[in-house]
Amino acid sequence: MSEAVRTFLRTNQERFLDELITFLQFPSISTDPSRKEDVQLCASWLRDHLQMLGLQNVQLFPTEGHPVVYGEWLEAGAQAPTVLVYGHYDVQPVDPVDLWDSPPFRPTIRDGAIYARGAMDDKGQVWLQLKALEAWLRVEGRLPVNVKVLIEGEEEIGSVHLGDFVKQHRQMLDADVVLISDTAMLGPEKPAVCYGLRGLAYVELHVRGPRRDLHSGSFGGAVDNPANVLSWMIAQLKDRYGRITIPGFYDDVRPLSELEQQALAQVPFDPAAFAHSIGVPMLYGEAGYSPVEWLWTRPTLDVNGLWSGFQGKGAKTIIPAAAGAKISMRLVPDQSPADIAQKTIRYLQYLAPPTVEIDVLDLYGGDPVLVDPESPPIQVALKALETVYQTSAYLIREGGSIPIVSLFQKQLEATPVLMGFALPTENAHSPNEHFHLDNFYRGMETVAVFYELLAATMAQQSTQKHR
Amino acid sequence: MSEAVRTFLRTNQERFLDELITFLQFPSISTDPSRKEDVQLCASWLRDHLQMLGLQNVQLFPTEGHPVVYGEWLEAGAQAPTVLVYGHYDVQPVDPVDLWDSPPFRPTIRDGAIYARGAMDDKGQVWLQLKALEAWLRVEGRLPVNVKVLIEGEEEIGSVHLGDFVKQHRQMLDADVVLISDTAMLGPEKPAVCYGLRGLAYVELHVRGPRRDLHSGSFGGAVDNPANVLSWMIAQLKDRYGRITIPGFYDDVRPLSELEQQALAQVPFDPAAFAHSIGVPMLYGEAGYSPVEWLWTRPTLDVNGLWSGFQGKGAKTIIPAAAGAKISMRLVPDQSPADIAQKTIRYLQYLAPPTVEIDVLDLYGGDPVLVDPESPPIQVALKALETVYQTSAYLIREGGSIPIVSLFQKQLEATPVLMGFALPTENAHSPNEHFHLDNFYRGMETVAVFYELLAATMAQQSTQKHR
Repeated sequence: MSEAVRTFLRTNQERFLDELITFLQFPSISTDPSRKEDVQLCASWLRDHLQMLGLQNVQLFPTEGHPVVYGEWLEAGAQAPTVLVYGHYDVQPVDPVDLWDSPPFRPTIRDGAIYARGAMDDKGQVWLQLKALEAWLRVEGRLPVNVKVLIEGEEEIGSVHLGDFVKQHRQMLDADVVLISDTAMLGPEKPAVCYGLRGLAYVELHVRGPRRDLHSGSFGGAVDNPANVLSWMIAQLKDRYGRITIPGFYDDVRPLSELEQQALAQVPFDPAAFAHSIGVPMLYGEAGYSPVEWLWTRPTLDVNGLWSGFQGKGAKTIIPAAAGAKISMRLVPDQSPADIAQKTIRYLQYLAPPTVEIDVLDLYGGDPVLVDPESPPIQVALKALETVYQTSAYLIREGGSIPIVSLFQKQLEATPVLMGFALPTENAHSPNEHFHLDNFYRGMETVAVFYELLAATMAQQSTQKHR
Repeated sequence: MSEAVRTFLRTNQERFLDELITFLQFPSISTDPSRKEDVQLCASWLRDHLQMLGLQNVQLFPTEGHPVVYGEWLEAGAQAPTVLVYGHYDVQPVDPVDLWDSPPFRPTIRDGAIYARGAMDDKGQVWLQLKALEAWLRVEGRLPVNVKVLIEGEEEIGSVHLGDFVKQHRQMLDADVVLISDTAMLGPEKPAVCYGLRGLAYVELHVRGPRRDLHSGSFGGAVDNPANVLSWMIAQLKDRYGRITIPGFYDDVRPLSELEQQALAQVPFDPAAFAHSIGVPMLYGEAGYSPVEWLWTRPTLDVNGLWSGFQGKGAKTIIPAAAGAKISMRLVPDQSPADIAQKTIRYLQYLAPPTVEIDVLDLYGGDPVLVDPESPPIQVALKALETVYQTSAYLIREGGSIPIVSLFQKQLEATPVLMGFALPTENAHSPNEHFHLDNFYRGMETVAVFYELLAATMAQQSTQKHR
């Protein structure tokens, strides 16, 4: 990367931050139907920005849900590799909103970080991608690689319509590499490239008992209580060793290779510090595995929400008519979300006693992902990080899910490169989400370097693929 | 009772109903701090009505919570028994409010019943008590017995301040009989006197895990989930035979006498019809006991409310920072609420894993009650019911709790007479609470008859007590 590109990135930092603040002010919560228009406004604003950057074929593609923003620059030539930059402009809900120190959609700078919903997941990381493109185009008038930019609005709800969109636009989206900044570094000054993601299966369980809430005195003892039943059913989902008891749940879990086990063992991890950072007395997980394995390579089952009966102040003496829970499972290769959801639903139906009725909704799923860590794009990403951060970069897996990544892998035969600049402590999906500005700025430089190194490494590789 | 008293009660029915409608319009929800003023307004209105009836020494006694309304008429002479009429003007919360067919505080007449929060629990039943007094006083200028009227505003929150009030006003409240209409008949045209009530212990459990909600991908597998822990803890509270597993829970349960077992066996009970009426596929309770025993003579444990994490629409992938539950237990003689609450708290603390922190609040308790069914006031009540309803009346127990009744028993040495006119199907504590008007009107007549019969039966008994 030329000194001029670097200088451009450094002298415009203040403007880039102002732009990001504007981006973060859109309350683009994809799961909330009342925010549909805000999501749309955010997409239109983003499209206008891609246009301003000088991308071509800039479009807002409507879907049955929220729109997809697209733009491209394809003048690097047929020899040059093509990179599809993927990100998302939608964000998680913000409740409990009273736990935020500043309002989630009024971005605030504190202690070198920007606080807002979406700061690191994923608007801040989308922005550093766009600014790397801007720097090359403004300073050099060109990019070292062909670039396609795809920014969707439904990542936080499982990319429900993007799958079809990718299948319908396979040619338009064709690429050698999918570059994604939606993951975290291992820690401050510990840059990392992620070669594996967990998948997700998400169900909602409803237990229905009496037609209406009952007086717990007049009826108690003779009527099964949906809240007690729900609790009992949830308790049956794990055994005393922390193993998930859904029949067949572990059938398709691929054992770790020896190489992987060795790589994982090298990852620095301090359980006490980790526990302290999130405020729990101790970590807890499946018997027989290490904390790093718990987080990256083992499937999980978590209740994400629970509700039943009277939740107000004081005491109300009822047998609730119904109870419900949101239950999600993180999956690892080669578990399939549809298969796991089906096994879960079947097991819940088996557990349900004859005293109640249950419904289980399959809310959504995403495939797990695994990339060969030896592949050239991953190696180039490591080098770009080492160039900018001046330290060696780690090869890691990640416990979270980006459901669409495996689709890119399958549909486009592209290699996903997960090069994220967030930190694990930046409160993703929680109150006080934030993103450190030093990584925001170094992230831009890293991406700018990545393009140059990739062009040098992959010209031949690209030719081979299309032969 | 004279024909004139009966005629007065019958010709004034429309006015009585209008008055009840006014009474029901006060949203006197005692557990809701934001309703404090409404509760106070309801009490003042009630006091003014007692004054209008011609009672003496009418007062509003402030307490640290909601006020007590009091009035008396003591001119029946020292030979005549004294009856303390007890009721409550406070009501349960109304949520879920969208399940009401008409607004809970806009009383509506449908199919011979009045629909409103408090219609049968307990405003409608308080009102029939007052109208019986009114009839005697207007028509005859006197009552056959001495009467004291005590109507409190905290029954639905465990009569938290009435205990001290009764102790402090023992002389003022001294009585031979405490007459209470706050229970139900066995069914339509099946009048009943209740000789036993269950008690109550009510706790609230809070489970706290991480300091904030965590991303279930980045942290899932290595951090114990408070919602899963809460569910597991609740599931440990009962065994597979429906027995409560809190150590020592059944220690003080008094076995049923043979006489009582025989009486219970005579109570008509159709489990299928009962299940159908509340909309459950089947009844369910402790192994080894009958449905009537489940409802009246066995202690229970019910979750009244549950909450954790994300309860909104859609999918949010978090490990919730906390989870909570309201858990109440109905108690039978001779279980003590304080003892059971303590045993429950100790057991929950024992169950709590080292991965979380818990708090348990002892919200409130009430003693169970048992009255000798052979005592004269109970026998008189049966006769009064049989006179008005023209059918034999049942001796029953009741699954609900009226925490203050045992205090009257202990502090005043008075015999509680639980003569209720509600029906078990009238949605106590639930949406669409209602009260049938034919029982409202016959209740007034029954109470008017009761006074006359009691005066005849108990003149001697009263003398004996004070000898």
